[in-house]
Amino acid sequence: MKRIFYPMLLLFPGVLFAQEIDMDAMAKIRKEGLDNSKVKEIAHQLTDVSGPRLTNSPGFQRAAEWSVSEMKKWGLTNSRIEEWGEFGKGWQVEKSYLAMTKPYYMPFIGIPKAWTSGTSGPIKGEVVVVNIQNEEDLQKYADGKLSGKIVLIKSTIDTDPTFKPDAVRYTTEDLDKMTNSQPFGQGNFTPEQMEKMRTMRFFRSKVDSTLKTQKIKLELAARSGKHGTFYTSNGASYLGKSPLAGPSFEMSPEHAGLITRLVEDGIPVTLEAESATSFYDKKLTTGNVIAEIAGTDPKLKDEVVMLGGHLDSWHSGTGATDNAAGCTVMMEAMRILKASGLKPKRTIRIALWSGEEQGLHGSRNYVKNTFGDPQTMKLTPAHEKLSAYYNIDNGTGRIRGIYLQGNEGPRATFEKWLNSFSDIIDHPTVTSRNTGGTDHQSFDAVGLPGFQFIQDGIEYNTRTHHSNADTYERLVMDDLKQMAVVVAAFVYNTAQMDLKIARKELPKARGEQGARR
Amino acid sequence: MKRIFYPMLLLFPGVLFAQEIDMDAMAKIRKEGLDNSKVKEIAHQLTDVSGPRLTNSPGFQRAAEWSVSEMKKWGLTNSRIEEWGEFGKGWQVEKSYLAMTKPYYMPFIGIPKAWTSGTSGPIKGEVVVVNIQNEEDLQKYADGKLSGKIVLIKSTIDTDPTFKPDAVRYTTEDLDKMTNSQPFGQGNFTPEQMEKMRTMRFFRSKVDSTLKTQKIKLELAARSGKHGTFYTSNGASYLGKSPLAGPSFEMSPEHAGLITRLVEDGIPVTLEAESATSFYDKKLTTGNVIAEIAGTDPKLKDEVVMLGGHLDSWHSGTGATDNAAGCTVMMEAMRILKASGLKPKRTIRIALWSGEEQGLHGSRNYVKNTFGDPQTMKLTPAHEKLSAYYNIDNGTGRIRGIYLQGNEGPRATFEKWLNSFSDIIDHPTVTSRNTGGTDHQSFDAVGLPGFQFIQDGIEYNTRTHHSNADTYERLVMDDLKQMAVVVAAFVYNTAQMDLKIARKELPKARGEQGARR
Repeated sequence: MKRIFYPMLLLFPGVLFAQEIDMDAMAKIRKEGLDNSKVKEIAHQLTDVSGPRLTNSPGFQRAAEWSVSEMKKWGLTNSRIEEWGEFGKGWQVEKSYLAMTKPYYMPFIGIPKAWTSGTSGPIKGEVVVVNIQNEEDLQKYADGKLSGKIVLIKSTIDTDPTFKPDAVRYTTEDLDKMTNSQPFGQGNFTPEQMEKMRTMRFFRSKVDSTLKTQKIKLELAARSGKHGTFYTSNGASYLGKSPLAGPSFEMSPEHAGLITRLVEDGIPVTLEAESATSFYDKKLTTGNVIAEIAGTDPKLKDEVVMLGGHLDSWHSGTGATDNAAGCTVMMEAMRILKASGLKPKRTIRIALWSGEEQGLHGSRNYVKNTFGDPQTMKLTPAHEKLSAYYNIDNGTGRIRGIYLQGNEGPRATFEKWLNSFSDIIDHPTVTSRNTGGTDHQSFDAVGLPGFQFIQDGIEYNTRTHHSNADTYERLVMDDLKQMAVVVAAFVYNTAQMDLKIARKELPKARGEQGARR
Repeated sequence: MKRIFYPMLLLFPGVLFAQEIDMDAMAKIRKEGLDNSKVKEIAHQLTDVSGPRLTNSPGFQRAAEWSVSEMKKWGLTNSRIEEWGEFGKGWQVEKSYLAMTKPYYMPFIGIPKAWTSGTSGPIKGEVVVVNIQNEEDLQKYADGKLSGKIVLIKSTIDTDPTFKPDAVRYTTEDLDKMTNSQPFGQGNFTPEQMEKMRTMRFFRSKVDSTLKTQKIKLELAARSGKHGTFYTSNGASYLGKSPLAGPSFEMSPEHAGLITRLVEDGIPVTLEAESATSFYDKKLTTGNVIAEIAGTDPKLKDEVVMLGGHLDSWHSGTGATDNAAGCTVMMEAMRILKASGLKPKRTIRIALWSGEEQGLHGSRNYVKNTFGDPQTMKLTPAHEKLSAYYNIDNGTGRIRGIYLQGNEGPRATFEKWLNSFSDIIDHPTVTSRNTGGTDHQSFDAVGLPGFQFIQDGIEYNTRTHHSNADTYERLVMDDLKQMAVVVAAFVYNTAQMDLKIARKELPKARGEQGARR
């Protein structure tokens, strides 16, 4: 058994520094993760075989059921879908066709916005382009003249050529800058950015609802992206009692630009379109996928280390980097730990969340049901038993370090763990910074240590995150392998520590949380 | 009037060096081109309004007729479509729909291959994936078992993330390297690359024809590209007497990859598809768009300076960078010269070619009809009267210099002209190198000086060249403006020279030329 000794530890003994890394266990994890990797197979099942995975859709259900069954096969215990409450309606696309027929024929790249209804068969008609930048513009179109029309909302989306690569990795300088930066705002955005996004979202939804009252035939909207890539979102609410919204496509900005330039040049544009969508509203509740490796230490086995990522996705691709990547890595980490024959002292529990894309619903409700309510800060006994939660939701890029989320307690421990993988983690980095927009925040909100890893960006922010280009091809398998090994090591080390991971001060009780995005 | 004097010229007087640049004319060209540019309007007409411009298609016809009429409005003379002979059938897409319906629904990005026939209404069926890498593989499928099937030809297309930018400009180092490099091979390819491409093309067409004899229901093939971009080509011959080919789609490699992985995993994949295409075979002949500014010098007005680019395009986009960009720049250069009120000594003639994408047919036939036949090297009297031909067909990127095409004669002249625009040409460069694959080669083939400019690549080789992403949005208007000014200056200077542009030695008569691509 090989063990690394840190000379400093002899000078400054203490809980955080004292514990050695079990290098024999690390070697087993490496071997299983690098030589017998199953990331390709897992990712294929979650993306290609399951398909788009909007919460409560058949695709989500396929992925959840497969994950439960696969983890059972690996010998994990308590593998199940654990209901957390009411999410709302499932939804999926059954037909999507959009093309220009005049002044000439051209097929367009687009898809129905999530939770909108279909066109009830093929429709055809001339397009009206409306330019709605503010309330005043909006009022111009509230007089019924758009009734029965195909309406394109004019947009100004940047489609200029990019002189920066789609795919990037952090440089040493990037990481050093991150090491020294501090937590700010909510996650990755400044308060000003958050406010701007909120305002834009509010206005956009007002435009949608105004157009709805005008009984238009079809709504079209360009989305960001270029070269055939476009980003997707919802066009109506998923809540159980929300009213049906009329048909609405989101589409590539180039094709929307073509329509706009022709119409503004006085050339009539005729489109044909057909969409069909299915709603699944018989069962509005949903669940998270949960599975465990039971702890073996009599004193510690009731304590838990968690790892997870969200299983749900948007609907235009197969949600490969957002977030089959995270689920693949977390499942593979569990598989590695089980297959390596290691006996963790604490119980290790994986959670694959639902409803993340609509507001971290799966993890928020799990935390509320299991550990405590951030609104009241009434905590359960289980709150004391969780050591840490590790999350992956930043795409396919390999791990370069970890965000402390403002919790300086485990810095030295994490540095030690990362450094023990310095052959596969280039320039391992620990930053005090927080990172937002995903499920570790649900744990953080009740004062539980929730962490995300620093990952190379690859194409996450340029091509894949919520886009139609988010397919299996966008996964970098070598990076997924590395991530699974590092996560398995973090989780195992956390399970073996004498003490639980240090915590921040408990947050104060707070009011109802707003929707995340 | 401002004139630039080159001190060297006093030491080495001579025809090539002696002639001063008319800086007053250059100032007029700059002013008209930079302050009153019409590149946006011209490009909009050629792309958005005309649509895809496969030779002899209605889109090509719209673009050609608009160009003729617009150039007449500008006061150009002899503006007309000049017939050059038989090209073959026009063709266009009337309907294009391709989607997966099982194991779940997903709309696919794809389009019928050029000159293939339609599906005669919607079709549906399970996909068979065939892996045909060589003759032996091919024989396996020649026994009728594919009859009536939807067949996807398996491919291995690189869809890895790109860590290089889509859009690039030449660095000073790139250009310096080019200055010193020599002509090689055919155009941009080495003889080995050419041979490999020929072999691949031949085998691919053999696969197509074998599948055709198997009476399959629909052929599908992945094309290069990623993130929604895919490249297009033809699936059958455009020649007048060629037999009809069955329906065939080319599609995004990610969607083809999805089908392939599912089928290879034993999961049946069902597709639905519909294509409709129109053939235009009543008139198989076609023409090039020609227009002139008449020369004014009694002794030189019978001599001609030409400029051009091909007007035809592929069918999945609107052929913006390939090659509405070139046509826009050349038309704008003519407009600038006319609007500036300059009186060129020699006649200036623009040509917008047809049939370039299928083998430089428009320019080859124009040259053959007008100047001489490269096969026999029987030359016409007009051969002696042409000073030079300038071509643009490398996308939207601004001019950085010129390729001499192995003709060292005009080096000093071109250097002087480029340097006089060093404020808008960064690091002006003249290289002896040839560049291939387009219409200046038709002139070069009969010993006439035919040149292309060195242009910044922007997204030409990564995204736009022959792809569905080749739309108006991909044009960099500032670059088109600069190109039009520089081209107008080159053309005007050529028209004013005491002598014609120096020529290379006449090539020897050669046999029939093979198809270019």
